[in-house]
Amino acid sequence: MMRHLLSAGDLSRDDATAVLDTAQEMLSIASRPIKKLPTLRGRTVVNLFFEDSTRTRISFEAAAKRLSADVINFSAKGSSVSKGESLKDTALTLQAMGADAVVVRHHGSGAPHRLANAAWIDGAIVNAGDGTHEHPTQALLDAFTMRQHLGPLDGANITIVGDVLHSRVARSNALLLETLGANVTLVAPPTLLPVGVASWPVDTEYDLDAALEKADGVMMLRVQRERMNAAFFPSAREYSRRYGLDARRMARLPEHAIVMHPGPMNRGMEITADVADSDRSVIVEQVTNGVAVRMAVLYLLLSGERPAEPTEEPQA
Amino acid sequence: MMRHLLSAGDLSRDDATAVLDTAQEMLSIASRPIKKLPTLRGRTVVNLFFEDSTRTRISFEAAAKRLSADVINFSAKGSSVSKGESLKDTALTLQAMGADAVVVRHHGSGAPHRLANAAWIDGAIVNAGDGTHEHPTQALLDAFTMRQHLGPLDGANITIVGDVLHSRVARSNALLLETLGANVTLVAPPTLLPVGVASWPVDTEYDLDAALEKADGVMMLRVQRERMNAAFFPSAREYSRRYGLDARRMARLPEHAIVMHPGPMNRGMEITADVADSDRSVIVEQVTNGVAVRMAVLYLLLSGERPAEPTEEPQA
Amino acid sequence: MMRHLLSAGDLSRDDATAVLDTAQEMLSIASRPIKKLPTLRGRTVVNLFFEDSTRTRISFEAAAKRLSADVINFSAKGSSVSKGESLKDTALTLQAMGADAVVVRHHGSGAPHRLANAAWIDGAIVNAGDGTHEHPTQALLDAFTMRQHLGPLDGANITIVGDVLHSRVARSNALLLETLGANVTLVAPPTLLPVGVASWPVDTEYDLDAALEKADGVMMLRVQRERMNAAFFPSAREYSRRYGLDARRMARLPEHAIVMHPGPMNRGMEITADVADSDRSVIVEQVTNGVAVRMAVLYLLLSGERPAEPTEEPQA
Repeated sequence: MMRHLLSAGDLSRDDATAVLDTAQEMLSIASRPIKKLPTLRGRTVVNLFFEDSTRTRISFEAAAKRLSADVINFSAKGSSVSKGESLKDTALTLQAMGADAVVVRHHGSGAPHRLANAAWIDGAIVNAGDGTHEHPTQALLDAFTMRQHLGPLDGANITIVGDVLHSRVARSNALLLETLGANVTLVAPPTLLPVGVASWPVDTEYDLDAALEKADGVMMLRVQRERMNAAFFPSAREYSRRYGLDARRMARLPEHAIVMHPGPMNRGMEITADVADSDRSVIVEQVTNGVAVRMAVLYLLLSGERPAEPTEEPQA
Repeated sequence: MMRHLLSAGDLSRDDATAVLDTAQEMLSIASRPIKKLPTLRGRTVVNLFFEDSTRTRISFEAAAKRLSADVINFSAKGSSVSKGESLKDTALTLQAMGADAVVVRHHGSGAPHRLANAAWIDGAIVNAGDGTHEHPTQALLDAFTMRQHLGPLDGANITIVGDVLHSRVARSNALLLETLGANVTLVAPPTLLPVGVASWPVDTEYDLDAALEKADGVMMLRVQRERMNAAFFPSAREYSRRYGLDARRMARLPEHAIVMHPGPMNRGMEITADVADSDRSVIVEQVTNGVAVRMAVLYLLLSGERPAEPTEEPQA
Repeated sequence: MMRHLLSAGDLSRDDATAVLDTAQEMLSIASRPIKKLPTLRGRTVVNLFFEDSTRTRISFEAAAKRLSADVINFSAKGSSVSKGESLKDTALTLQAMGADAVVVRHHGSGAPHRLANAAWIDGAIVNAGDGTHEHPTQALLDAFTMRQHLGPLDGANITIVGDVLHSRVARSNALLLETLGANVTLVAPPTLLPVGVASWPVDTEYDLDAALEKADGVMMLRVQRERMNAAFFPSAREYSRRYGLDARRMARLPEHAIVMHPGPMNRGMEITADVADSDRSVIVEQVTNGVAVRMAVLYLLLSGERPAEPTEEPQA
């Protein structure tokens, strides 16, 4: 296992499979009388959030607490960061306080890499979303969810739809799914595709209906309303008509295909409420799987550093 | 015991008595060397607060931690809720993350009921204050405090004074006290009584001095200064003169009667400092009892769901 | 040991030495497999912060959690404090909730003393910075760091440089270092020295270069940019030229001398980046020592109150 989790692209197929297999074990904890492992007792996980993301923060917080770690939430708002402290000094502070893992969310693409490369912190850095760049634990939880429903992902066809330009979820999924052998098709308005998309391991398609017919899974991206403007689309209604998933369109999917969304959803915009709540939607499972995947990541990154304590390991 | 705690009116006399009796046991924990029970270890309690209420939040947080639960604080400010996520999707997210109890504070009357009735969450919903509607754990801690000082509440006379219109505390108390057999008298300016008060199980009285003479307990409500305006009263002084509790007025109470306030107080407005700090004031005890009552509520709602672990039960 | 930690000046030499010796033991915990002591299990530590200070808050939070205490963060922003609740009522609330220690940060000088003197709270009050007055745990961690590098502080020469006027760190250091037998020299622009400095147990010096030549340790204070104005200095550059520490100036220090800063640094203002990152800088160690010192303070203030539990005590 690697020391950090910065990019979905850094994971070998073995690495990724190890995370997914470990997450499977972690899921089983939820059915025990005591839904908690003592594995990371005495370890400190810091949630270093330079931008708000309650969902991601509480998912990591729940994951760390179920492993008995101490969790410290560090919101950069109102901290010395806002008094002009550098990323370096914030990192050195967390290191000096004994952080074993730093889960970092940052508005700037590449911030977690800077933290890791500068080696200011001995502990593990986990990228919880950096700018429009990556969100590797989201890709892992998506892959976990697909694997549960579709079996091994080798040769699976996954369609990702919407605002790819601003989506760290799309990029991390494209990288991880290629590693796992799946074929990814992006469907997006040309103005919402990133310039460098030609170098991504994906196909692009402009006709959503055509793409759906061959998809084993479809992932609807959140429309960042604040980033939409008239230059892209005349209206939200126009966006929904061409790139939204409604019941009529969902019917084009093969029988076994699943519908995903990283949340939070704009119901009625990129996905209709009936699709979001349908039997094919695995959106709620994605959230559950997110906690299990983050437990697995923290476990694999941190448990190697300490002496084995056999009675405290998860029971496979 | 019920699955949720939404309204003080849902509690039967047996339910309410069970909470009060359990709270009595919980109070005794404070005198132990280790002020903590392992009862809810591995359980996750989420404080879902759509409006700030530090006092209520930390009371529930302390209660959950003394039962060894993991606590996750979810402030809706800056969360995806503020990006337009629906209550439904927030609820589904918490459910998917494995929340065993969701303590919800919401500016909208009825939000906890919506959460519970829609069955988005398997865990227990605890209403920690919804709009101007209800605050059932406040009523329980008030009843607990009264019972400690006055004995069984059957036939006790309790007077509630002030801004009943905007008070969820008054409504929850009226409902619970009726269940417990007490007689409730409201004293308030006519403009600060709710339209539907005729259907409440209470008497109304306009003369505070007269009401005090027969009261076993008086509860002064917080004046919501921001809701006062010239249409109601010429001035704060005028309010204090007619509806505030000062030493002179307190002297009208029977010897054994107690003075309560849900906090935070406006000293000098609805209650004078000398009354707040007098021997008859049980305001500080109410806070202590609040933690014990919330421990009891979490214990009763959550401990039934898991296999009995005899060595971990509270020692009655 | 005292009941509270309000001022560095309240500590006798024995008290201070007890804290530093205990902190030395606490530091050793970081090298254990389980970096945690059960000493304060069941105890509740409240971080009552009336002004933001993420660094100090998470240092106390980490310290308390490593001693297995329950930690409750109470930010006065958005709380009933901002609705006009008095310090007294906030204190009575925390007392009633069973807080065993209240770590208080307040913009008003003397607030922790008011809390302690009024005896609203039975638990220990720890001053985590009050206005421009004191920050005793900072002085303790500074002394701890000096002692590690310089040995016993009797006769050591410590130079403190910069905005003494607005610095609670300078005042607490001056008091504690005198108790420990060190000689303190302040170097500051005359406009940034407090009026009462003549009564402090320190020398003052206007020539930084001269002061450095005899210093065993130099502590650079953070420039509060927001408090600087044209009346004091024509420019930040002028400040740096006269009162900043750069490599050239650092060369004047004796071979064995150390460079300190309480953080967060303005790199390039009161200290250059190369000095901050040099071998002589112990700035990062100060942060590590801060957690150990705060563990020691909480341990000494709280562990005396409970029956000894031999198997849970730290192993000396």
